Amino acid sequence: MASYSAPLRDMRFVYHELFDSSDISALPGFEEATPDLIDAVLEEAAKVCENELFPINRSGDEEGCRYHQGGEVTTPSGFRECYRAYAEAGWIGLSSDPQYGGQGLPAAISTLLEEMVCSSNIAFGTYVGLSRGAYRAIAAFGNDSLKTRYLPKLTSGEWSGTMCLTEPQCGTDLGLLRTRAEPNADGSYRVTGNKIFISAGEHDLTENIIHLVLARLPDAPAGVRGISLFLVPKFLPNPDGDPGERNGVLCTALENKMGIKASSTCAMNFDQATGWLIGSANKGMQAMFVMMNDARLGVGVQGLGLSESAYQAAVEYARERLQGRSVTGTKHPDKPADPILVHPDIRRTLLTMRALTEGNRAMATWIARHLDLRERAEDETTRASANDFVQLMTPIAKAFFTDYGFDITNMGLQVYGGHGYIRENGVEQYVRDARIAQIYEGANGVQALDLVGRKVPAHTGRYLRQFFHPVQSWIESHAFTPALQPFVMPLAKAFGRLQLATGHIAQVGLKNPNEAAAASSEYLRLFGLVALGYLWARMVEVALTHENGADQGFYDAKVATARHYMERILPQTGSLFAAIMAGASTMMDFPDEAF
Amino acid sequence: MASYSAPLRDMRFVYHELFDSSDISALPGFEEATPDLIDAVLEEAAKVCENELFPINRSGDEEGCRYHQGGEVTTPSGFRECYRAYAEAGWIGLSSDPQYGGQGLPAAISTLLEEMVCSSNIAFGTYVGLSRGAYRAIAAFGNDSLKTRYLPKLTSGEWSGTMCLTEPQCGTDLGLLRTRAEPNADGSYRVTGNKIFISAGEHDLTENIIHLVLARLPDAPAGVRGISLFLVPKFLPNPDGDPGERNGVLCTALENKMGIKASSTCAMNFDQATGWLIGSANKGMQAMFVMMNDARLGVGVQGLGLSESAYQAAVEYARERLQGRSVTGTKHPDKPADPILVHPDIRRTLLTMRALTEGNRAMATWIARHLDLRERAEDETTRASANDFVQLMTPIAKAFFTDYGFDITNMGLQVYGGHGYIRENGVEQYVRDARIAQIYEGANGVQALDLVGRKVPAHTGRYLRQFFHPVQSWIESHAFTPALQPFVMPLAKAFGRLQLATGHIAQVGLKNPNEAAAASSEYLRLFGLVALGYLWARMVEVALTHENGADQGFYDAKVATARHYMERILPQTGSLFAAIMAGASTMMDFPDEAF
Repeated sequence: MASYSAPLRDMRFVYHELFDSSDISALPGFEEATPDLIDAVLEEAAKVCENELFPINRSGDEEGCRYHQGGEVTTPSGFRECYRAYAEAGWIGLSSDPQYGGQGLPAAISTLLEEMVCSSNIAFGTYVGLSRGAYRAIAAFGNDSLKTRYLPKLTSGEWSGTMCLTEPQCGTDLGLLRTRAEPNADGSYRVTGNKIFISAGEHDLTENIIHLVLARLPDAPAGVRGISLFLVPKFLPNPDGDPGERNGVLCTALENKMGIKASSTCAMNFDQATGWLIGSANKGMQAMFVMMNDARLGVGVQGLGLSESAYQAAVEYARERLQGRSVTGTKHPDKPADPILVHPDIRRTLLTMRALTEGNRAMATWIARHLDLRERAEDETTRASANDFVQLMTPIAKAFFTDYGFDITNMGLQVYGGHGYIRENGVEQYVRDARIAQIYEGANGVQALDLVGRKVPAHTGRYLRQFFHPVQSWIESHAFTPALQPFVMPLAKAFGRLQLATGHIAQVGLKNPNEAAAASSEYLRLFGLVALGYLWARMVEVALTHENGADQGFYDAKVATARHYMERILPQTGSLFAAIMAGASTMMDFPDEAF
Repeated sequence: MASYSAPLRDMRFVYHELFDSSDISALPGFEEATPDLIDAVLEEAAKVCENELFPINRSGDEEGCRYHQGGEVTTPSGFRECYRAYAEAGWIGLSSDPQYGGQGLPAAISTLLEEMVCSSNIAFGTYVGLSRGAYRAIAAFGNDSLKTRYLPKLTSGEWSGTMCLTEPQCGTDLGLLRTRAEPNADGSYRVTGNKIFISAGEHDLTENIIHLVLARLPDAPAGVRGISLFLVPKFLPNPDGDPGERNGVLCTALENKMGIKASSTCAMNFDQATGWLIGSANKGMQAMFVMMNDARLGVGVQGLGLSESAYQAAVEYARERLQGRSVTGTKHPDKPADPILVHPDIRRTLLTMRALTEGNRAMATWIARHLDLRERAEDETTRASANDFVQLMTPIAKAFFTDYGFDITNMGLQVYGGHGYIRENGVEQYVRDARIAQIYEGANGVQALDLVGRKVPAHTGRYLRQFFHPVQSWIESHAFTPALQPFVMPLAKAFGRLQLATGHIAQVGLKNPNEAAAASSEYLRLFGLVALGYLWARMVEVALTHENGADQGFYDAKVATARHYMERILPQTGSLFAAIMAGASTMMDFPDEAF
């Protein structure tokens, strides 16, 4: 049976040592986020995740959600109690505005909490994640009345939220959306239509559920320019703020899915349901994109969280499972066989899992820090640069973390051999749960298209500078540091490929957008690998300052893991570069009927 | 909903055009395997798979197998009827000896049948696959009495077979095996012990089940040199050959698995069960390896079969699903959106699936032809060379086909987006079903170790010649054919990497086996990619002889798919080569406690 122990040492390393956490605590409103407080918060979060969320993860998968006549949905045993405790301890509002009852802590911290939640129970995480998304959209675009009425309840966790985008005929292409909203005399709207794949659309965790629904006004232009965002509560709040009359929104079915079975995925019917406009008419996509961009990093973190769980499970099994002998001779003559950890192929697998997981954790924190800077930095230049960085890196993090999340959970299963395929051992659930993260909040191919089609060309490449400049400058200033040579050289080579590929795509993509689109997935992967290469080189730089100090094993492992990354993973940039340069013609010339 | 149509055109291409099928029909006993007969057999097989097996695939997954008090197991609805029809039509004995009621057709044909079975219902395929394995082991090592008693029943499908190897404490490492066998006065044995993960260990498809069980004799040496193989029937045959007294073998539980849910995976208890020795005492591993080697190609074909189904499902969905517009402008103004087939990233995905699937089909047939040559060629040199080739290529096919089988089924799911994650659409089942093939019959890491540790060094590299010589000679004789340049050049480059990597591994592995083991998985992948590169180049050579002829679209698609392979997939050999050359020290020096 897999177990989970939050990687607090590595989280502290990333938060305080790899990056300078005083940058964050210096921001207005974060004065109290001292290192001691941060560490205490992380420790408490670890306890909740290890002791409350993780123990109901496997049982939640077996039991799943249940649909009941009349449209009610019950979550698996233990979820209600766990949710209540989680909400009451204030975890849902960890980074929410204190004005609405939140703890007001940095996004860089709540991202680490999210990782732990996803490591221990990703299905549970979907409920709180959706509430956070709804909170942000209302906070950013709602009027004061909506904010006052809904944000405290979403922060406390008494109520939860959803994002209602998808309809049977429209997923990626929201221009095809049919749900409509008609104005009432009192300024509210009547929302009517069918939505599918609505995570947390119905459940028994909260007394009310707040749906954020994309719909069309009667006079709306066709396509994505005619979409507005509405707030539609399950129960209409009474004047005193408590849930009152039942609204015309009903869960009509639960989807039977490959994984995240404890997360309710609902088909929802809105029948003249009362709702309120969030933001301006026909500007719903803008609000939705703000919400989605945040949610995309959150989905990336799901991949990261499951990577960590899978790594821990695989290491545990590799230590315990006795099978065969080392090819260089018996290592444990006292045992009937050596633990499989002696085998090079197992060690290669584990180090690959580790290098990618720790690298992705560093990248998640790097991005989350920029969320805080974007929100709170006092000078506008810093805020604008931080936004550029977040815009650029979000699609990369979403696709890269979740593609590797799936690969890493599968590596973990493979270490278990046949025992990994058996449900009771828990690791195949990680694989099934991880699979959805490559799809929702924009399938990873859509992320890649967002990168090459929007983020790279935006403002003639301005976003790119926030990545290219620091990497270039770090390489230049460390190119002649002897101890860093085994890390700077491969990074410089891979970075060169990224620069060439970027120039190539920008050029050919301008003439023929198919060229950029054809290269997009491989380009995103190349970008992510280079970003991790840079972060690993910087982690080595930090680790080497601790030679012969306390915690030596931790820092030595950092350096060795970085070496594995440079030797075995970063070289993939070479074949990605070759594929990118091959162009679009072969795939575009292939006749449709020949497929 | 996914559908399936057997790729008969491509099968005929591979069987008759890429390779010379008259080589096979010229073998003694295959005189009747004329092109017309072969094509008729393939067409009939397609009908059975499309119309009988495929329709109960999804329902079989939902329903699963059921365990009943007393150790009986029932298969899902429709499996019994389907099995009976399949057996009565003679498909189980397609390549079995006519002496025992088989059809006596080439392995190259039965491999194509196996592909169709796995495409349409891999769980069903496990029952017939295990029977075939048992047939082969008894045919190769059983005495005449066992052959006469059991082979006709296994051929007709009245009885089925199993392979009982794994025990809780021993999977890969059979040296740890504890099941024991004690001799009876009449020459039979009493077999006692517990086995797990026994596919088809108990079910309701046949009137008897024949277990081939690895066990230890009382005086057996420790480790793998003390293992013998026993035949243990569920019902002891009466003198008239019909099932008689119940034997002391009982299914004690069914495993709850990630996939292949309609395949019964049993925990089996043998309690003084009567059995008979197959082959010599303490030589059970030899017999088992013969059986396993055949089974390994069969498992590889499972990966191939699911790749084909996933490809077809993805193409179908990409044509039907309307979502977004082409980035170069609307392609279907008459529709609310363009089919997603217009998007480069979807086309790249489909061509990648296609290039690997068709390439693997060519490779499976290439190997299966050598099974026939090994078995039936009149001169001993041909038989010996064919055996060398089979020995070398089997671990590659097993791991390469199944790793890509999993990747390709996932690519298919990704094309479906969120709809792919929903069980009723059928494609997530392909993913879950494909996952086991990377594990059973020797996990893919074990295949890689077999390749570098046994097959490459065997007889100082003799096996390798059967691959290296034809590839080298083909490259040399086509290096200056202008139309083949875009294929010969990348192949030559990749082949050069394989040659260098082989030399390197042979050299460093001799001094330190960890070096070969550390490189093994990447080396196997490199080998497989080069083999496919060679086969794709040869397929182009054939296709180009049909310019402006009948069936032009088919041959043009071959050339275009080959180009995609050379441009987008084969370049991965570069990064694999770099990883191989990085050596073992980083992973072996990593302290155990630091993982």
